Amino acid sequence: MRLATVSHAAGTSAAVLHGDTWRALPAADLSALLTATPPQRVADLAGEALVDAVPVLPLPAPAKVVCCGLNYADHIRETGRELPAYPTLFPKYADTLTGPEAEIVLPRGLQVDWEAELAVVVGATLRRTDRETALAGIAGYTVANDMSVRDWQYRTLEWFQGKAWDASTPLGPVIVTADEIDPTAGLDVICRVNGEQVQRDNTKTLVFDAADLLAYISTFTVLRPGDLVLTGTPGGVGVARTPQRFLSDGDVVETEIAGIGTLRNTVRLTD
Amino acid sequence: MRLATVSHAAGTSAAVLHGDTWRALPAADLSALLTATPPQRVADLAGEALVDAVPVLPLPAPAKVVCCGLNYADHIRETGRELPAYPTLFPKYADTLTGPEAEIVLPRGLQVDWEAELAVVVGATLRRTDRETALAGIAGYTVANDMSVRDWQYRTLEWFQGKAWDASTPLGPVIVTADEIDPTAGLDVICRVNGEQVQRDNTKTLVFDAADLLAYISTFTVLRPGDLVLTGTPGGVGVARTPQRFLSDGDVVETEIAGIGTLRNTVRLTD
Repeated sequence: MRLATVSHAAGTSAAVLHGDTWRALPAADLSALLTATPPQRVADLAGEALVDAVPVLPLPAPAKVVCCGLNYADHIRETGRELPAYPTLFPKYADTLTGPEAEIVLPRGLQVDWEAELAVVVGATLRRTDRETALAGIAGYTVANDMSVRDWQYRTLEWFQGKAWDASTPLGPVIVTADEIDPTAGLDVICRVNGEQVQRDNTKTLVFDAADLLAYISTFTVLRPGDLVLTGTPGGVGVARTPQRFLSDGDVVETEIAGIGTLRNTVRLTD
Repeated sequence: MRLATVSHAAGTSAAVLHGDTWRALPAADLSALLTATPPQRVADLAGEALVDAVPVLPLPAPAKVVCCGLNYADHIRETGRELPAYPTLFPKYADTLTGPEAEIVLPRGLQVDWEAELAVVVGATLRRTDRETALAGIAGYTVANDMSVRDWQYRTLEWFQGKAWDASTPLGPVIVTADEIDPTAGLDVICRVNGEQVQRDNTKTLVFDAADLLAYISTFTVLRPGDLVLTGTPGGVGVARTPQRFLSDGDVVETEIAGIGTLRNTVRLTD
């Protein structure tokens, strides 16, 4: 199944794609739907066809958004580090997320950088689980761009203040359920800036895969349906280039994962 | 005013202290109360006296808990660092919090350490505000212990995975409103383990005070009523001692701030 939160002629709704038609699911968005309904039961709930449906931010209210840094071997090497024994984790807020076509509006003068990422949507309550249980608890996968404000990220030891700018991380456009897609078998992750490819790698090269990350995180904090885990970005980010390259006002960032979809976001740097 | 969430003969309630009596406020807890009611209006809402009222976790559902590390000059020096130009920030979850008398239950074998801290309760919506507006937006102050799992904190560059263990950060017992207490004038912050004083400093030595932190954080993410900001811990933590010292099963940690109150938590390390 392909799931989304869509805006349509009469409002917004969780929805499931049947052919070319988005059909309503009984919740205002996928955060509300997944909190109330196991992903395995969603297929039975498809209702009326929605007119003029357009995917928006699929998960507007995750309680937890946990991100993994340094998880593709080539990106780790470009930052000058060795392959890690443990995942490097940092969080974002629900407020950090924005829609698949939203403008990314940030103050002028910041060093804004791209980070194309596979995002994992949690579909069960996971607390101190093993890899197998974590894998069974994945609702599906979507696309994210962990846009990073590099100057703030590196002001201190902790990356958080460069990673949690409101409405800076586009997500979507759809969630593909875990029965239909397998990132460990390999999905291409691509980022383009104004049409130029700046990142391209494949999820089969992740050091810690989705199930590893969910099991690890669940050791210290419970994960619940609708929570998100971002799996890290490939090599090719702007801050690691010589010379360094950051996003400018008007730049168009496309973030694509084969088999899921593409985010298309214009950067707006304002006074 | 002294505010709390209390358990009482008939359930739990937000409450305000009148003399020795906790009087009901119209919400199940202070998270719900502050979301609906500006702190300036709370005094008018005091209702019936509550029988057998005992303060529990005052804020069970903050959307954001932002913590500052390295904010007392002597603690910074004991970690071998220079005074910072910017606050070092990391987050916790609502799930990380626990009550003022709760047992801290963690798996055996972890390096569990104490960090007594002043916590600031946000009372207004703050977005890209200056220091003055941030100061006016403080609802009050309470006590926290940012218990840290040091081995996980230092597994990677990012502290988050050692700072966000569920139910590991006691908070409370009361919130003293900002009209009655001024941390910049100086409040003693004390931590004792099994009665032995291990930390003692004063909030007037904070590098970044409460208003500084709220204004700084509001630059990148909106703060809302009921959110929490922890202001960092003084010197004397176990990991910085020679030899290092960590908490054992059965240890009693008392965290006190003069003029607010004392947390008393027993550590339980389980298989």
